[in-house]
Amino acid sequence: MDEDARHRDRMRRKKELIDRRIARATIDRGVLVVNTGNGKGKSSSGFGMLARSLGHGFRCGVVQFIKGSFSTGEEAFFRMFEDGPLDYRVMGEGYTWETQDKARDIAAAMAAWEEAERMLGDASYDFVLLDELNIALVKNYIPLDRVLHALATRPERQHVVVTGRGAPDALVEAADTVTEMRVVKHAYQAGIRAQKGVEL
Amino acid sequence: MDEDARHRDRMRRKKELIDRRIARATIDRGVLVVNTGNGKGKSSSGFGMLARSLGHGFRCGVVQFIKGSFSTGEEAFFRMFEDGPLDYRVMGEGYTWETQDKARDIAAAMAAWEEAERMLGDASYDFVLLDELNIALVKNYIPLDRVLHALATRPERQHVVVTGRGAPDALVEAADTVTEMRVVKHAYQAGIRAQKGVEL
Repeated sequence: MDEDARHRDRMRRKKELIDRRIARATIDRGVLVVNTGNGKGKSSSGFGMLARSLGHGFRCGVVQFIKGSFSTGEEAFFRMFEDGPLDYRVMGEGYTWETQDKARDIAAAMAAWEEAERMLGDASYDFVLLDELNIALVKNYIPLDRVLHALATRPERQHVVVTGRGAPDALVEAADTVTEMRVVKHAYQAGIRAQKGVEL
Repeated sequence: MDEDARHRDRMRRKKELIDRRIARATIDRGVLVVNTGNGKGKSSSGFGMLARSLGHGFRCGVVQFIKGSFSTGEEAFFRMFEDGPLDYRVMGEGYTWETQDKARDIAAAMAAWEEAERMLGDASYDFVLLDELNIALVKNYIPLDRVLHALATRPERQHVVVTGRGAPDALVEAADTVTEMRVVKHAYQAGIRAQKGVEL
């Protein structure tokens, strides 16, 4: 058997294996995705999934639990779709070390959560992105039990993406797909200034 | 000092530390970002950065080195911007285990690379996403040296994002920011069928 034939054979077997695995995965319901870890890409991956969902014609909701200085690009971009299939809510007033007022941070986090809870209770939303929710959970600004309950009782076909470092164990347990974004290297280390367009 | 005052004090020190680090990072040039690893979110993070870049009014280019079955949502979504600031190219004909023809895969990968090389040589592109380029490099479908050369000699302010598992060491070395997406758990394991809108 020549090399090309061996390659074809190997690829055919690989395709069969993958097709079998996909055929076995037959539960057709919404998934809960969690992006956590200290590396980059947690939020941008969530916004990429939002773009994909809008591309599929889904009705989508976004709650940003932290209004960060890097989010202005996404916000400008996705707000173009607000007349149509997207509800985009930015809550809070920046990272807590920017505001230095804990009571105000808790109030902002709870207001954001109430908006999220409304979306999780509404089957007309096909996709909900809860950006940086984990940070509010880590700080105990929002009761974890209440979040787990809302996720567990959400509409069966609704997809949810939760981002932020430090995802609580119980949330990881409840999720279908969990990815840890791990830092291999970071542009700060090379002294490059944070820039528009790419979150460094 | 009461608890609130201590909290404010802690947050103030943290803000100062972060502000100092940002002030020190003064090299203002385009960054090379690599998303690799076996977990989810590599491509969707790249597409999230694309959305952010479009939101900032950047001119953007995308080359998808693999036309995967999950990319139809992004493609439908982002092609809306093709009249304006975005060039979107989908190359290849799916994963190699779908086509089972190595010579055709190599030809498709090289055609995609030539399009990428053109964008990397054109300073009018502020942001270039090379989705799944790593897979073509791992398979030696595209010469690594040629890719490293094009990246090293690209316009100084151009941002580039490269995605795909198995990023070669020399590419990691050349990059400014590298994230490894690590699988914590995956919906396949729970038998959930791949779905529109969320890449499982």
